[in-house]
Amino acid sequence: MIIKLKKNIDEVLKNNIIEKLDNIGYKSNDVTTQYADYIIGVGSKEFDIREVGVLNGVEDIHRVTSSAKLVSRKWKTKETIIDLGDDIKIGGGHFQIMAGPCSIESEKQIETTVRHLLDNNIKIMRGGVYKPRSSPYAFRGLGIDGLKLFYKYCNANGIKIITEVMMTDQIEDMYEYVDIFQVGARNSQNFNLLDALGKVNKPVMLKRALSGTIDELLASAEYIFSNGNEDIMLCERGIRTYEKAYRNTFDINSVPLLKKKSHLPVVIDASHGVGIREFVEPVSLAGIIAGGDAVITEVHEIPQIAFSDGAQTLSHKEAEIYYENVRKTVRFRKDLKRF
Amino acid sequence: MIIKLKKNIDEVLKNNIIEKLDNIGYKSNDVTTQYADYIIGVGSKEFDIREVGVLNGVEDIHRVTSSAKLVSRKWKTKETIIDLGDDIKIGGGHFQIMAGPCSIESEKQIETTVRHLLDNNIKIMRGGVYKPRSSPYAFRGLGIDGLKLFYKYCNANGIKIITEVMMTDQIEDMYEYVDIFQVGARNSQNFNLLDALGKVNKPVMLKRALSGTIDELLASAEYIFSNGNEDIMLCERGIRTYEKAYRNTFDINSVPLLKKKSHLPVVIDASHGVGIREFVEPVSLAGIIAGGDAVITEVHEIPQIAFSDGAQTLSHKEAEIYYENVRKTVRFRKDLKRF
Amino acid sequence: MIIKLKKNIDEVLKNNIIEKLDNIGYKSNDVTTQYADYIIGVGSKEFDIREVGVLNGVEDIHRVTSSAKLVSRKWKTKETIIDLGDDIKIGGGHFQIMAGPCSIESEKQIETTVRHLLDNNIKIMRGGVYKPRSSPYAFRGLGIDGLKLFYKYCNANGIKIITEVMMTDQIEDMYEYVDIFQVGARNSQNFNLLDALGKVNKPVMLKRALSGTIDELLASAEYIFSNGNEDIMLCERGIRTYEKAYRNTFDINSVPLLKKKSHLPVVIDASHGVGIREFVEPVSLAGIIAGGDAVITEVHEIPQIAFSDGAQTLSHKEAEIYYENVRKTVRFRKDLKRF
Amino acid sequence: MIIKLKKNIDEVLKNNIIEKLDNIGYKSNDVTTQYADYIIGVGSKEFDIREVGVLNGVEDIHRVTSSAKLVSRKWKTKETIIDLGDDIKIGGGHFQIMAGPCSIESEKQIETTVRHLLDNNIKIMRGGVYKPRSSPYAFRGLGIDGLKLFYKYCNANGIKIITEVMMTDQIEDMYEYVDIFQVGARNSQNFNLLDALGKVNKPVMLKRALSGTIDELLASAEYIFSNGNEDIMLCERGIRTYEKAYRNTFDINSVPLLKKKSHLPVVIDASHGVGIREFVEPVSLAGIIAGGDAVITEVHEIPQIAFSDGAQTLSHKEAEIYYENVRKTVRFRKDLKRF
Repeated sequence: MIIKLKKNIDEVLKNNIIEKLDNIGYKSNDVTTQYADYIIGVGSKEFDIREVGVLNGVEDIHRVTSSAKLVSRKWKTKETIIDLGDDIKIGGGHFQIMAGPCSIESEKQIETTVRHLLDNNIKIMRGGVYKPRSSPYAFRGLGIDGLKLFYKYCNANGIKIITEVMMTDQIEDMYEYVDIFQVGARNSQNFNLLDALGKVNKPVMLKRALSGTIDELLASAEYIFSNGNEDIMLCERGIRTYEKAYRNTFDINSVPLLKKKSHLPVVIDASHGVGIREFVEPVSLAGIIAGGDAVITEVHEIPQIAFSDGAQTLSHKEAEIYYENVRKTVRFRKDLKRF
Repeated sequence: MIIKLKKNIDEVLKNNIIEKLDNIGYKSNDVTTQYADYIIGVGSKEFDIREVGVLNGVEDIHRVTSSAKLVSRKWKTKETIIDLGDDIKIGGGHFQIMAGPCSIESEKQIETTVRHLLDNNIKIMRGGVYKPRSSPYAFRGLGIDGLKLFYKYCNANGIKIITEVMMTDQIEDMYEYVDIFQVGARNSQNFNLLDALGKVNKPVMLKRALSGTIDELLASAEYIFSNGNEDIMLCERGIRTYEKAYRNTFDINSVPLLKKKSHLPVVIDASHGVGIREFVEPVSLAGIIAGGDAVITEVHEIPQIAFSDGAQTLSHKEAEIYYENVRKTVRFRKDLKRF
Repeated sequence: MIIKLKKNIDEVLKNNIIEKLDNIGYKSNDVTTQYADYIIGVGSKEFDIREVGVLNGVEDIHRVTSSAKLVSRKWKTKETIIDLGDDIKIGGGHFQIMAGPCSIESEKQIETTVRHLLDNNIKIMRGGVYKPRSSPYAFRGLGIDGLKLFYKYCNANGIKIITEVMMTDQIEDMYEYVDIFQVGARNSQNFNLLDALGKVNKPVMLKRALSGTIDELLASAEYIFSNGNEDIMLCERGIRTYEKAYRNTFDINSVPLLKKKSHLPVVIDASHGVGIREFVEPVSLAGIIAGGDAVITEVHEIPQIAFSDGAQTLSHKEAEIYYENVRKTVRFRKDLKRF
Repeated sequence: MIIKLKKNIDEVLKNNIIEKLDNIGYKSNDVTTQYADYIIGVGSKEFDIREVGVLNGVEDIHRVTSSAKLVSRKWKTKETIIDLGDDIKIGGGHFQIMAGPCSIESEKQIETTVRHLLDNNIKIMRGGVYKPRSSPYAFRGLGIDGLKLFYKYCNANGIKIITEVMMTDQIEDMYEYVDIFQVGARNSQNFNLLDALGKVNKPVMLKRALSGTIDELLASAEYIFSNGNEDIMLCERGIRTYEKAYRNTFDINSVPLLKKKSHLPVVIDASHGVGIREFVEPVSLAGIIAGGDAVITEVHEIPQIAFSDGAQTLSHKEAEIYYENVRKTVRFRKDLKRF
């Protein structure tokens, strides 16, 4: 059960509601986000929700029985819009392309990428400075200094930054330089990291785990929301299956299902979802047709010399055609009737 | 190695070529299809293929090292077009919608469906008369009598029939009434059935197995081709994964990969690929954008009373909007640039 | 609902029972096996089963709601024993080793293997004469002539034969020379083949499909039983997962679960279950400890030159130690207490 | 390449070796553990390793090309023994049972469990105080205060503690009260946590990820080792597959493969591996027969009222028979011949 509280509710009224829930046999979870105050009631007894609805201080009340509550579309039917400022928005009809290299490699590379993005009217740059790598001996990213460089160029050119955060301790240092915190697939159920990102007032893009279910992804998003941060995007990036013809199997089914189950925007990561350069475009367009609110795509001036993920990265030249097709497809889908 | 032979080649010349291969250390497989004669050489020795290429009777020769040879696009770069007559074609830029119920249930149902298809200008009707069911006590289809009824109405109205064949012994009886033999997912590696369908001069639509790999699907198609039948379509119908939010996980990645690896048309079965009515449309459109040459979709006047698969079946009313969106998407993708 | 009928029941009494079920709203399925007559009632209405139980001709009656009925242990609590004659039995405390090459290759190979089995007191020889191969150009077995040779040596030496049948048409020809018909993983849901094997009075070993579920395996066994053949063994041979370190992932969990759900014997195929020679023994022993009633294992005098599956095949020398460990483990598990 | 350095090697000699590697074109990684100093050379050039082997300060040198180096058995052929003190050891022929509840729930529960373990001569107690739960509204453990209570009773009775650590920041607080740090499946690729545990001088038990590969598990272990901690155990706890008859699919194949690839002990977690109480015993025994060095098993006085995982938890009464069977099986496997 989700109870949205009136703005600036008096503590007495709030305690009154909690006490009422307690009497009915529901455990209360206090949730305060950047936008509102909620009480999440967890329990299984049947009762007439109007008993609570009539209490002073209650803005509205909804019964949500699934374990994902605040992120559920059953409660909030309007799509969440992530507002990054400067009129850059994702969700609720707003579409964005996020592009850039797998890893931030050098000042020169940042410069080149920023120019490429400006030339193509892309507003959000991706790039890792903390890289999760299976081998401890592999390149693990330029770290906070790389991020500062990244920020210098993007900030000067009105480009927003999305980059991966791997641990709670990094959040504070990164905060100033980041527009969207990305949670990687391997950290999709790192609940302490999710808790901490729930306490930050910056958008979070949460990737599905390597073999995460839809329900687990929503439950992970619920961690962030219930800790206080409503600005969450879900990212489909392919799942692990028996098929070895591609790096991952992009789960196209998840896109319309996530859109139906949740009010949060869904981001398409076809670079990881298929892992083969020439198929990034058809899979991205498929994800858009199926309902995606954004794409996040690896591009590099010369993919062959990228520090990581070269095989799934588009060259800047290829990317230009890609962006055009993405935009055409976004426009096209508005023509489709829905039944 | 694929050697295409000259039309009506003399036996002496043919034996000469086989002997030459034998000397080089290659095993010859004689393949005669409805369109041409081939010798498939299997071996691993290195040699100058011009030695064989210059022999009398050789039309052309190609080295194909993958185990799928005749179905490979490395050999035949032009897309195969399945010609069903009456100007109904699939592949090579020709797109078709195949629609109809999961099971043929009654004469009345056939009539209603045929009228629905005519109204919507659909040229191919699907419908099972032999149904693979996990329980021996479930409805197993109307059999050959159902097929004859099915044929009566379709034939009278210029509609082609696609229906599943489950065993070798059914082929002869079904032959007259079928335009496309469908091989179901459970029979995708029923090699004797594939052998037998290779000897039939009617198109075959081969479904990917429940957890079949891309390479296995192509190898199964190779069985049909190498037994003499070139008219094959591949069907992506979703794979089995850990995710239980849908019946199967539609593998969108397979579509561009199959199109790249093989010259055979690719059919999108989103009904089984997601298994939930309201997602059949977005997944179908995604499959089209990704390169599909046809869709095969379960529709029923009243899905709620269908004998089987009701939950993934569109009502005739929903299907009308679906067809329109499918056609729009087919037209739209022609506008996309390819890099 | 399973109704076991009295031996040699009068047709009038039987029709009476069917009529009664019909009145209650249950569909009757007539099942006659080599051992007994049954009526399987399929329906969902609640009623007092004593109403049927009291009818003349009813031996006993059981409510079984799962879709696998006759193979269920809820109905038949005593384990099925497969009796191959000559005091060779599987199930109900009787354990057998089945061993031999993947493919029957030559008379010489049969002779060598038979001698090896005799030396080690093994009573059942495996060996394929019809081989399902992913490529149409690969060796597909010696066929019926190979089987006759196989039979000549085994019959002369008191060794029973298990070999794979791939299609209905082969059953009649093979019948005389086979002691156990094996259904391979790719045919595990070839329902027509299962129907046909249900009409044969010889034991069947049914392998789990490449990615078959426990419920599907039991449903496939139900096909055989309900067509008239009670002598069925279930075979765990590994499933397809994302892990590529082995050919398949042997599903050890399935062993105690199948033993609990069904009265049919469970056979351990560690050769395919792990696919790596040196791990065949630990995985086999694990399967025995977990409850397996038999092992089926690929052995070859010189695995390195085997026509197929060499990498997972034990040499005769290795096999000798293997057999000893298998037998020790079978004896050992009798010492374990069960709670 | 692994270069083990002489004890207390002089910095000059060490730099000399690093310089040599640099000249050859290898990147050096400095590794100092509680037991020794190493240099890990990463590169791909061919060269004569004796060129490095002859340098002063080199104890020995091994070429290991797989990405898991220090944890590889190619380098260290002797099995690692984890020594917990008080003659409690795991690996290299030493076997231990770890048992206890899923979650630490109360002082009373700790007391009861400790008494049960003492009665059964179990030396290591498991129990979570930080619980990873998919829902943010579920019980998340008693935290550090629970751990202190846990420690009080175990320490007083000579019982060692294994418990899960979820984030870097917890390590310091937990250190005094923990004998083995457990890394859960969801954190198996939380590389920052692995880095931090590499800097701790206490054993770590690393669980395989939900759908982790063998290679990923070894690479994660390499993180811990290369950060300075050699005392690592690997835990097989089942993987995520399409089969929903059990919580996870215990991967029995992994046990002999991990033992072959790595010198680290392998722990069998059948509680999570199958997730159904009555199958925990057969799966555990299977894991032991296949080579496991320890079992970790959920037991609870009254599983029906456990805060979490009750369905896979043995009652204390069941556990007594279980321990006996485990010990019998450990003794039995010593009788098996290996080929």
